[in-house]
Amino acid sequence: MSTPIFITESAPISAEESTGTRIIVMGAKGRMGSTIVGLIRNDPDAELAAVIERPGNESGLELLGCTVGTDLAEVLPMHPGAVVIDFTAPQASLANARACAANGNPIVIGTTGFAPEELDELRSIAAENPTFWAPNMSVGVNVLLQVLPELVKKLGLDYDIEMVELHHNQKKDAPSGTALKLAECLADAREWDLKEVGTYCREGIIGARPKKEIGVQTIRGGDVVGVHTMYFMGPGERIEVTHQAHSRDTFAQGSIRAAKWMTGRSAGKLYAMADVVAG
Amino acid sequence: MSTPIFITESAPISAEESTGTRIIVMGAKGRMGSTIVGLIRNDPDAELAAVIERPGNESGLELLGCTVGTDLAEVLPMHPGAVVIDFTAPQASLANARACAANGNPIVIGTTGFAPEELDELRSIAAENPTFWAPNMSVGVNVLLQVLPELVKKLGLDYDIEMVELHHNQKKDAPSGTALKLAECLADAREWDLKEVGTYCREGIIGARPKKEIGVQTIRGGDVVGVHTMYFMGPGERIEVTHQAHSRDTFAQGSIRAAKWMTGRSAGKLYAMADVVAG
Amino acid sequence: MSTPIFITESAPISAEESTGTRIIVMGAKGRMGSTIVGLIRNDPDAELAAVIERPGNESGLELLGCTVGTDLAEVLPMHPGAVVIDFTAPQASLANARACAANGNPIVIGTTGFAPEELDELRSIAAENPTFWAPNMSVGVNVLLQVLPELVKKLGLDYDIEMVELHHNQKKDAPSGTALKLAECLADAREWDLKEVGTYCREGIIGARPKKEIGVQTIRGGDVVGVHTMYFMGPGERIEVTHQAHSRDTFAQGSIRAAKWMTGRSAGKLYAMADVVAG
Amino acid sequence: MSTPIFITESAPISAEESTGTRIIVMGAKGRMGSTIVGLIRNDPDAELAAVIERPGNESGLELLGCTVGTDLAEVLPMHPGAVVIDFTAPQASLANARACAANGNPIVIGTTGFAPEELDELRSIAAENPTFWAPNMSVGVNVLLQVLPELVKKLGLDYDIEMVELHHNQKKDAPSGTALKLAECLADAREWDLKEVGTYCREGIIGARPKKEIGVQTIRGGDVVGVHTMYFMGPGERIEVTHQAHSRDTFAQGSIRAAKWMTGRSAGKLYAMADVVAG
Repeated sequence: MSTPIFITESAPISAEESTGTRIIVMGAKGRMGSTIVGLIRNDPDAELAAVIERPGNESGLELLGCTVGTDLAEVLPMHPGAVVIDFTAPQASLANARACAANGNPIVIGTTGFAPEELDELRSIAAENPTFWAPNMSVGVNVLLQVLPELVKKLGLDYDIEMVELHHNQKKDAPSGTALKLAECLADAREWDLKEVGTYCREGIIGARPKKEIGVQTIRGGDVVGVHTMYFMGPGERIEVTHQAHSRDTFAQGSIRAAKWMTGRSAGKLYAMADVVAG
Repeated sequence: MSTPIFITESAPISAEESTGTRIIVMGAKGRMGSTIVGLIRNDPDAELAAVIERPGNESGLELLGCTVGTDLAEVLPMHPGAVVIDFTAPQASLANARACAANGNPIVIGTTGFAPEELDELRSIAAENPTFWAPNMSVGVNVLLQVLPELVKKLGLDYDIEMVELHHNQKKDAPSGTALKLAECLADAREWDLKEVGTYCREGIIGARPKKEIGVQTIRGGDVVGVHTMYFMGPGERIEVTHQAHSRDTFAQGSIRAAKWMTGRSAGKLYAMADVVAG
Repeated sequence: MSTPIFITESAPISAEESTGTRIIVMGAKGRMGSTIVGLIRNDPDAELAAVIERPGNESGLELLGCTVGTDLAEVLPMHPGAVVIDFTAPQASLANARACAANGNPIVIGTTGFAPEELDELRSIAAENPTFWAPNMSVGVNVLLQVLPELVKKLGLDYDIEMVELHHNQKKDAPSGTALKLAECLADAREWDLKEVGTYCREGIIGARPKKEIGVQTIRGGDVVGVHTMYFMGPGERIEVTHQAHSRDTFAQGSIRAAKWMTGRSAGKLYAMADVVAG
Repeated sequence: MSTPIFITESAPISAEESTGTRIIVMGAKGRMGSTIVGLIRNDPDAELAAVIERPGNESGLELLGCTVGTDLAEVLPMHPGAVVIDFTAPQASLANARACAANGNPIVIGTTGFAPEELDELRSIAAENPTFWAPNMSVGVNVLLQVLPELVKKLGLDYDIEMVELHHNQKKDAPSGTALKLAECLADAREWDLKEVGTYCREGIIGARPKKEIGVQTIRGGDVVGVHTMYFMGPGERIEVTHQAHSRDTFAQGSIRAAKWMTGRSAGKLYAMADVVAG
């Protein structure tokens, strides 16, 4: 909505006091990059090692008091062990992951839209160098994905499962990717196939609800960042679990949490948010 | 769900202490009738004048300590001025309304499913005798129908309107009649036609939400009596208004409130819940 | 609120078709007992073996088509293996548990208010005969008690925990026993002591919220059966988990689920709802 | 939370296309000022006429393509009719209101913390020049303040009223000023005095809820901008009305809506948000 536009001169510039995880931010002037930079500067356990912007777009970044570069490969040797955070685009992220592998720096990727073969390439890079990828960095959503299957199993088949998701009025797809992922997770917990049980439209004489069904309904309006509510409805009671994202901060914050967690990990698998929240 | 099955002998039997509105309940052993009888017996401002059941089904009703009958027309002359509450079926309700008109007793009808010509007949009876009809007796829903148009107008066109309704898993139609009535009321407040702006299905690439739209989405599960949530979403904020029916008591209670309000009214129009909550 | 008062003659009378868990209900005309009887009659996997009422109060029970008695000890030998469900009072429940032990029948107790020494006696009976006790029979609440500690641990210390509980306007204690049990469970998950961190009043200049705190706030009104909402609030997001009891049915239903689960259990420990929902 | 730090060069710079209300923003680099500037630049019905910052702090503002100044009195003659938006501090706002009065420019003030005598002075300025003041610019909250009294009156005394407010963990006072204002509005609708009926603490054996009471309970956690929920609980049903502020945008947006509304108003009274939302 409102665009961040000014350098806040009162913000902390010096990184010397900080002793936490050193981080390199790609696209530091972009919407997500600038949010991540802001959060790192206020985080006593993280330190801004470097920022990268495309050539010609670096002006002003020198005020951050860290390395400013336009080519990640050139900057990495100056910051061994620093973790790269990358919310860019599939091909750029792959190039960055390769550059990290060449220098042994861990990388945390939040980019969406990878083709299957691009994901395969990411996995092969991850076999050699600590690499992390999550299409949704929210800690809360990822914790729910881990905890809700247990809830479903313990409640038993008497409980009907439904979901409502709410997003701003500019969102073009329905239901949201996060809603589908949550619904899939709930279906899996019952060994159901979401393709069979997912129900997205109800209008007219629909008859009594089949037991083997998960309704996922979509609400759109205003500038709501994202709300997902899951209903578990049984005899004489119901449980509702709601996740609300307040701002993009939650995704930026998740990437910083992932970066901290990645420090000192070894290569082998493509790490995911589930690994981070598992402890 | 669970069926009421026993006479609770500890409940108040004597009606003599009460001095409130005298009420005659049709179908006193039915689901709605027995709830109404129970509420009247606990209400210091209402008094059970008589109960009516079909012939052969009256056993046990004598414990209520009021007139017990099988034919309303025979009972009415014994209770001039008493208000009849009727949740039966269209033809039975019309016959009862005619019997009331013949004796000058007011009648409160909660029956649904009247055909247009049956409603016309009810209106012609109402021209001669105080007659009330409401398909939804909930005080809360009817108050919202009166107050929400003002909310919509004051918020202005920047606010997107949406609704979610939630009912038990045996409900056969979607959205609920109450949801449609509320949506119509919100559309009217903008001089929109719900037939044009009502949106009941969202799936796939739906694109940005048109401004002139009201989404009404349906959730089904468990034994939920009925929940309706309306969303008003604008720049940087949203308002949610939720109505929850806890039990059928709310409809029974609404009919008693209507019966009290009907005492002393004159004939002329077919009264509705809107008249009652208007004060 | 409204009292169940009539025998619903259309309800299933014959128990012969049913082949499920055979159950004996104590206090079959009481508020909880009559609800349990109603649910068993509609449950294809349960069968009403006998009902017990105090002498002089049995009239009408013969319509249920099962054994009717006034003394549990006399009825038990007629129904070996049947499970007793008892929502009475501490001393009566102990006597019933002893009678069950003498006959080898399992017993499910939902009575509250046991003194510590009475609970000790219940535990010693449980060592010899399958005995179950739960002060809150709600499946949902008990599942939450098992699942939420995992949620708390995975979210980590960045997430503030709070609770709001809502009950009807006649409830005399605050917060509810269920709220305190849930809060204790959340505190335990952080190895905190609820006695230290529980905060029940906030008014005036309270200052920034201490990290080590769990606020539990109380709302009262209308005839709400019981709503508990837990909040988990972190950077840029929050999770809300709400449990709503729709009616006393949920506690009655929980006792039937417990009765089914108790069939075939051996003695040894005093079983709890946690055992049932654990699978 | 995250600090806005960079000039977004892709944002609209030219104001020539816009033909809406011309606005002058005080403290354009501050948290609220920069949000307002961002919203105006994206609003086809508003135009940024000038921005004011303290001397030495103007660098970068020239990129906005509007007048940049350090003294409002000098800038106003260049923009006759432009509306000033001021979220500063009481003494500064008074000085700005006087400067506006000298030039005939309307002013919209969102500053809080005025002493009674300062408010008196503001009122005397308003007598001569179009002046607006609102301590809470949220359109939604102000609409609720107008609509809820009607809801309360129509529901009648059977409905218990309660409130829960939720804010971030750094908020120092409880309940929030907005919660108190809403509670006062609800109490007034019943001709009750909030000082008598407001209840902020419930712990221990509190007994049945008195009818003449409004509970206001406080929840704190995370970075929640602000949520207020009002409960109206009656026989068999309840209504919940929730207002959620998503971000400071809602207050910035409210000030722009007020600025548009102020165009062409005459002097006379100190205008408030209630006037704007009244239509």
